[in-house]
Amino acid sequence: METKPPVIDAAWLWDAHMTMAAIGPNEGGGSDRPALSAADAEARALLRGWTAPLGLVEERDAIGNMFLRRAGREPEAEAVAFGSHLDTVPTGGRFDGISGVLTGLAVMRALDEAGIVTRRPLELVNWTNEEGSRFRTAMMGSRVHAGAMTLADALAVADDDGVTVADALAATGEGGPLAPAPRLWHAWLELHIEQGPVLEEEGRDIGIVTGTMQARYLQLTIRGAPSHVGPTAMDRRQDSLAAAAEIILAVERIGRAAEPHGRASATWIQNSPNARGAVPAITHLHTDVRHEHEAEAARMQAAVRAEIDAIASRRRVTVDADPYGSFGPTVFDPALGDILREAAKARQLTTRDIIAAAGHDSVLIAPLCPSAMLFVPSRGGITHNPAEYTESEQLARGAEVLLDAVLHLAE
Amino acid sequence: METKPPVIDAAWLWDAHMTMAAIGPNEGGGSDRPALSAADAEARALLRGWTAPLGLVEERDAIGNMFLRRAGREPEAEAVAFGSHLDTVPTGGRFDGISGVLTGLAVMRALDEAGIVTRRPLELVNWTNEEGSRFRTAMMGSRVHAGAMTLADALAVADDDGVTVADALAATGEGGPLAPAPRLWHAWLELHIEQGPVLEEEGRDIGIVTGTMQARYLQLTIRGAPSHVGPTAMDRRQDSLAAAAEIILAVERIGRAAEPHGRASATWIQNSPNARGAVPAITHLHTDVRHEHEAEAARMQAAVRAEIDAIASRRRVTVDADPYGSFGPTVFDPALGDILREAAKARQLTTRDIIAAAGHDSVLIAPLCPSAMLFVPSRGGITHNPAEYTESEQLARGAEVLLDAVLHLAE
Repeated sequence: METKPPVIDAAWLWDAHMTMAAIGPNEGGGSDRPALSAADAEARALLRGWTAPLGLVEERDAIGNMFLRRAGREPEAEAVAFGSHLDTVPTGGRFDGISGVLTGLAVMRALDEAGIVTRRPLELVNWTNEEGSRFRTAMMGSRVHAGAMTLADALAVADDDGVTVADALAATGEGGPLAPAPRLWHAWLELHIEQGPVLEEEGRDIGIVTGTMQARYLQLTIRGAPSHVGPTAMDRRQDSLAAAAEIILAVERIGRAAEPHGRASATWIQNSPNARGAVPAITHLHTDVRHEHEAEAARMQAAVRAEIDAIASRRRVTVDADPYGSFGPTVFDPALGDILREAAKARQLTTRDIIAAAGHDSVLIAPLCPSAMLFVPSRGGITHNPAEYTESEQLARGAEVLLDAVLHLAE
Repeated sequence: METKPPVIDAAWLWDAHMTMAAIGPNEGGGSDRPALSAADAEARALLRGWTAPLGLVEERDAIGNMFLRRAGREPEAEAVAFGSHLDTVPTGGRFDGISGVLTGLAVMRALDEAGIVTRRPLELVNWTNEEGSRFRTAMMGSRVHAGAMTLADALAVADDDGVTVADALAATGEGGPLAPAPRLWHAWLELHIEQGPVLEEEGRDIGIVTGTMQARYLQLTIRGAPSHVGPTAMDRRQDSLAAAAEIILAVERIGRAAEPHGRASATWIQNSPNARGAVPAITHLHTDVRHEHEAEAARMQAAVRAEIDAIASRRRVTVDADPYGSFGPTVFDPALGDILREAAKARQLTTRDIIAAAGHDSVLIAPLCPSAMLFVPSRGGITHNPAEYTESEQLARGAEVLLDAVLHLAE
């Protein structure tokens, strides 16, 4: 096999993003591609079509994680793995997750074009349901892969329409024969858009992600009492929505006080009876606190709980607070960080160390093998929004650093 | 025809309430019987079954209002009409609306049993969709009857699942051949539970409703910008749910400041993308202010709008506020009030004048013919709640006053 220097095809990489974005389009030019939806299945099929000419062998596990394997010169050697996810939130953009998969594919294509076979096998991964917006919990595929959630628990999770993960895997045919379990990987790398403004504001090319914040969730059920909006005097009400409103603002205050190293959010709400003439009786609310330091995240969560208790007592409502999930803090492998930093430097690219605020599949993989992430800039830091944007050249630079690091690790 | 003094059958009246409550039961023993649902159709069929032996003739209009007519000695005389509604909110009790229909039916049964034929015809009415909780707007049937809403507009209203009133009328077969229009009525009377604590607290038997508050609604669409809860710093967010939370609490403050003659509520909310990892981007909210005095209601609504504007500006969200509906203030006919008051007095019952805070079909009928309402006590003022309760004897006393007033008006 004749070899030549591998080259990232920047034009192909950009076009691939745009082609992928057209699957499950939302208003504004982004994508609405919930995990294991028909659109997600179509996105996976598109990925398969692109990998077919490269001779990658697909393996798929029972939660739908896709492993696209490229043979190495030493078939028994531990593989170098990289990738991200193709699912999006309903108001998703074109890059979050997708760029990690498509730059990985661009690396595979560059190696193929150059006729290079690495010593170690390579695996390009598409994780199932990273976003967790349709099926609670986020990073579900990597979570099950890592044994942090049982397959049975994951399969039983239902979306807001009562469709379970098991149903959706069956409907799309995306469940595979492998039992989810850690694979023999020498290292794991994930390229992602920053989803923040720092790289752009400082004019840096590449973010070296040294770790992630800790996030802690609460699923709240606020119970008041139903009554009629007309005759029921204000002081007799036990209004679950008004209690939720106070909690939402308390969470926001706690987030503001934790800036710039922490934040807090209330994102998801369901109200009952949700009838125009009825004082709300039951309101469900989801809250999320994040901080770079675990102790501070715990302090924030305690502050949220204290606010909830005070609000519940004052308003004569009850609140059930289920701390059903969390992630981080994560410390990525420093040696891998060095490899990425050196690869960027060798290409005259500027870098900056960053703590990631969002959850990523890499958080789940970090305990299993040496893992690291690299960020490319996001315009205005806008993300989970159709306006999410990373320039073609920025994507290509990221892919080049990924390529160099993969080659380094795989030889 | 032999006549004897007409007597309200208190035991039948109570049993009829309990039998009706079993149609569309909710948790706690009340009813969940949305307008034009299968349960509502079943409730209507039960009412028909009860009226059949009385020889009442049913007429039904195109919005589903039921008019059950009892012949008078002078067929051309204007009828005396009375009734209320059988639909409920999802957390409904057993009395709101139902008691107005069933006491009316108890009056018809008492007259039948006594062999009395009044000079004027009588009409027992079941209005469609008084609650407005499934199909916005409340008092829809009487509204269309009174020409305050066009039939076409009403038929096009969709519930949260996209089912229109026209669809629901077709599905239940409850649409009738009459064009909705005011009927030739000498007077209109509606018995209703108080839905407030005043009669109980003061130990009075009957409330003479002299009028209603004014209510003004707003349907809000709050638009922020989608972003990711992790990386998006607090001060960069345009969080539509947090803006809604501030509006909910502002509305509540305005309601508290207006006590005891006014109140204000935020009851219905829809949030988008309503995904756990996404800062909310679009939130819809329904608000409602009420006051006994129109000028004060207008002032309250202006205060809500001013708060909305300030919140929108501070939070960099936009708010579209649609003042799609209102009712009142209503002044009921003083002469009819006197008749009710005298009827109660003749039976040694105590009365009190009351301004109603809730909307009622009578608000729409009042401009068409002399109209009035009477209230019976509500335990603890609890309503729109399965715990809503009026004693059997209290219902029977109300029915007796209704009977006496109907006889007075129909002779």
